[in-house]
Amino acid sequence: HRSKLPDVGTTIFSVIGQLSAQHNAINLSQGAPNFPCDPALVNGVTRAMQQGHNQYAPMTGLPALKEAVAEKVATLYRQTYDVASEILIAASASEAIYSAIAGLVHPGDEVIFFEPAFDSYAPVVRLQGATPVGLKLQAPQFTIDWQQVRAAITPRTRMLIINTPHNPSSQVLSAEDLDQLAAILRNTDIVVLSDEVYEHILFDERKHHGMATHPELAQRSVIVSSFGKTFHVTGWRVGYCLAPAELMTEVVKVHQFMMFSADTPMQVALADYLRHAEHYLSLGAFYQQKRDRLVEALRESPFRLLPAAGSFFMLASYGHFSDEPDSEMVKRLIVDYGVATIPLSAFYTDGTDNKLIRLSFAKDDATLQAGAQALCRVK
Amino acid sequence: HRSKLPDVGTTIFSVIGQLSAQHNAINLSQGAPNFPCDPALVNGVTRAMQQGHNQYAPMTGLPALKEAVAEKVATLYRQTYDVASEILIAASASEAIYSAIAGLVHPGDEVIFFEPAFDSYAPVVRLQGATPVGLKLQAPQFTIDWQQVRAAITPRTRMLIINTPHNPSSQVLSAEDLDQLAAILRNTDIVVLSDEVYEHILFDERKHHGMATHPELAQRSVIVSSFGKTFHVTGWRVGYCLAPAELMTEVVKVHQFMMFSADTPMQVALADYLRHAEHYLSLGAFYQQKRDRLVEALRESPFRLLPAAGSFFMLASYGHFSDEPDSEMVKRLIVDYGVATIPLSAFYTDGTDNKLIRLSFAKDDATLQAGAQALCRVK
Ligand SMILES: CSCCC(=O)C(=O)O
Ligand SMILES: CSCCC(=O)C(=O)O
Repeated sequence: HRSKLPDVGTTIFSVIGQLSAQHNAINLSQGAPNFPCDPALVNGVTRAMQQGHNQYAPMTGLPALKEAVAEKVATLYRQTYDVASEILIAASASEAIYSAIAGLVHPGDEVIFFEPAFDSYAPVVRLQGATPVGLKLQAPQFTIDWQQVRAAITPRTRMLIINTPHNPSSQVLSAEDLDQLAAILRNTDIVVLSDEVYEHILFDERKHHGMATHPELAQRSVIVSSFGKTFHVTGWRVGYCLAPAELMTEVVKVHQFMMFSADTPMQVALADYLRHAEHYLSLGAFYQQKRDRLVEALRESPFRLLPAAGSFFMLASYGHFSDEPDSEMVKRLIVDYGVATIPLSAFYTDGTDNKLIRLSFAKDDATLQAGAQALCRVK
Repeated sequence: HRSKLPDVGTTIFSVIGQLSAQHNAINLSQGAPNFPCDPALVNGVTRAMQQGHNQYAPMTGLPALKEAVAEKVATLYRQTYDVASEILIAASASEAIYSAIAGLVHPGDEVIFFEPAFDSYAPVVRLQGATPVGLKLQAPQFTIDWQQVRAAITPRTRMLIINTPHNPSSQVLSAEDLDQLAAILRNTDIVVLSDEVYEHILFDERKHHGMATHPELAQRSVIVSSFGKTFHVTGWRVGYCLAPAELMTEVVKVHQFMMFSADTPMQVALADYLRHAEHYLSLGAFYQQKRDRLVEALRESPFRLLPAAGSFFMLASYGHFSDEPDSEMVKRLIVDYGVATIPLSAFYTDGTDNKLIRLSFAKDDATLQAGAQALCRVK
C-alpha cells in the first residue's frame, strides 16, 4: 500500500519506552509522571461515573469545564474567550493540535515550525498535503532568530507553530519575542498555533508569555493546553484549545467528525478541580525542586547540563567526551547503564545530531536519584 | 478564513440535542443510553485510577485489552488478529474511522459509501482531498444494490465504507451480501472500512455478518468497533479497530500523531470486563426487548414503523399523513409534542427527504413509554 507518510516509523516515545522496559531501565524518557495524581481528582472521576455521567458530553465540551478554563485564562492572562464559541475541550492536547492543523491548513500551504520540535507537528502538516518548513533553533540557547522567521515567510505561509515552554529545549519565549512575532505577522493572515501544554511549569520567577498575554497575537492564535501535563494524568486524554470564533469554527469541524466529544466523567471532575487555582499555580515550584534535585545529583556526572527554564525536560550534552551519535549514546545508556533518555536528534526531521540527550524530571525523587547515579557512572 | 469544509454546519446530534434540552423534550434522538452502565465497570475504572494507571498507555493500546479483543474476535468470528500489529485501541470508534480514512485515502481517491449514512464519513473523506461517492440505499428496505456498486467502481476507488448493523436504517448485511462484496472487490486493491459498532445488537436470532466472518474480505478490511455502544458508556471514548498489518501500519501512523494513546484507566477496566462474554452476548436480547416495547407502545400512533433488524435505532414514516419535510416534522415534534428524534435527511449529503424520522431506543423503559405516548398524540 502506498503510504501518505512513507518516512514515518514508530514514534521515538514507543521505541525508547519498549527498549527501556526490556532492559528494566530507570525511565527518564517520556514526559509521563511516575508519581500519583491528587486523590481528589480520582475521587471526582469516580463520583462523576457513579452519578451517571458516562454518556456523550456536548461536542465542544462540558460547559462547566469550558467556564472554568475561561475563568483561569481571564485571571492569569487577562484575555476573554467566549465559552460557547471560542473554547474547545479536546480529547488531549495532541487532538487539539491535530484538529487545528487539519482544520486550518490547506494543501499547498506552508507551515513554519522550529526544530528541535515535538514529533507530531511535521507529519500532521504533511498529512494535509502542506509543507512543513522547519527553522532550526541554534543550540545551546535555542532562541528564535526572528530575522530568519521573517525571511522564511512566503505568500503560501498559512501557519506558524510556537511551543513555549519548549519541549525538548526547556526554553521559554519572552515578552520581546511576542512583540517581534506580532510585528512580523502584522498585515498577514498567518495563524499562530501555540502549543502551551507546559504553561504552568516555569522556573526561577519566570512568567509564561503565551499568546493569550498578547492581545494582538491572541486574535490570530489557536492556543493549546493540557490537563494531563498539569495534573499528572497524561493517560486521561483531555486537553483544550482557545481561539477567536472564526478560527475555532474550522477547528471544531474537524473535532466533531474525528472525536465528537472528549471523555465525560473526566471532564466533570476537571471542571471542579480546575476552579482551585492552587492546583496549577504550585506546579512551577513543584517541578523546580525536581529540576534542582536532578541538577545537584548530576554534579559528578560527565554530562554538561543546559539551563532549564520551563517544562519538565532538561538537555544534557556529551560531545566533550564522546563522538557517538546521540541515538547510539541513548541505546548505550539503556543497555549498559540502565537509564532511558531521548536522543535530541529524534526531534529533528533531518536527524541533526547535536550530541544532546533529553532527560525528563517528571519522576519521583527516588527515580531521579537512581537515574542520576546511573548517569554519573557513564564513561 | 477559507474553509476546508464550507458546507458543514454543526452536527445534527448537537443541533437536536440543544433544541431538545431547550424544550425539555423526551430525548429519543442521539444514540446515547440514558440508563446506567454496570457498576462493576465503574469500579474497575476506579480501581485502575487508585492503582495509579493514570499515565500514557502504550500508543496502540494496553496489551491486555488488545488480547481480550483478539480472543473475542477469534471466538465469535473465527478470525485471528496479531495483537502486536493488527489491533489498535483508539480513543473512540470515531477516531478509528478517522484514522483509517486519513491513513489510507489519498487526495484524488474516491470512496464509496451508502446513504443514508452516519454524518462523519463524507466530510472526513473530503478532508483528505478525496471524493465521497454516495450510493443511495432504497427506502424502505435499505438493501445494497450490488450491481450499482459494481458500476460505481472506477480506477480511483480506494475504499468502500460498510456499516452493519446500519445506522440509521437498522438493516444488517447477510452472508450473501458479503459474498457479493468479495466477488466485486476481487482483483482490486480497494480497502473496506467496516463500521461495526453495533455488532452485538442484532434481533430475532440474526447473526452478525461482519468482515471478520469472511476471510477473504477480512484481508482487505479495517473493522471498527466501540466499547461505548456495547457497554452503555458512550462518553468514555474508547473503541478499537482490526486490520491486516500492512493496512494497520498506515492507520497507526495517523493515530500516533493525532491521539498518541487512548484513556488508560478505562482501558484497564475494559480489559477485565471484556473477558466475560456474557457482558456483550446478552446485548441483542436486551435491546430487542426495548425495540419490542417501543413498537408495542407506538401501535396507536399515526407513524408507520420500519422493521428494525439491528442497532438501537428504528425508522418511522409519516408521508401518509403529512407532507412536511422531515426536518420540519422533527422540529414540530420537539416544540409541540415534547419528543426529540432525528430527521433521516440529516444522513444524506443532498438532504434527501423520505419523510422518515429516526428513533433511538437506547433509553430506559419509562422514557420509551413517555416518548411513545407523545408520538401517539401527533396529528
Ligand atoms: C505522547 S508524548 C507527549 C510529550 C511527551 O511526553 C514527551 O515529549 O515526552
Ligand atoms: C456522535 S453520535 C454517534 C452515533 C450516534 O449515537 C447516533 O447516530 O445517534
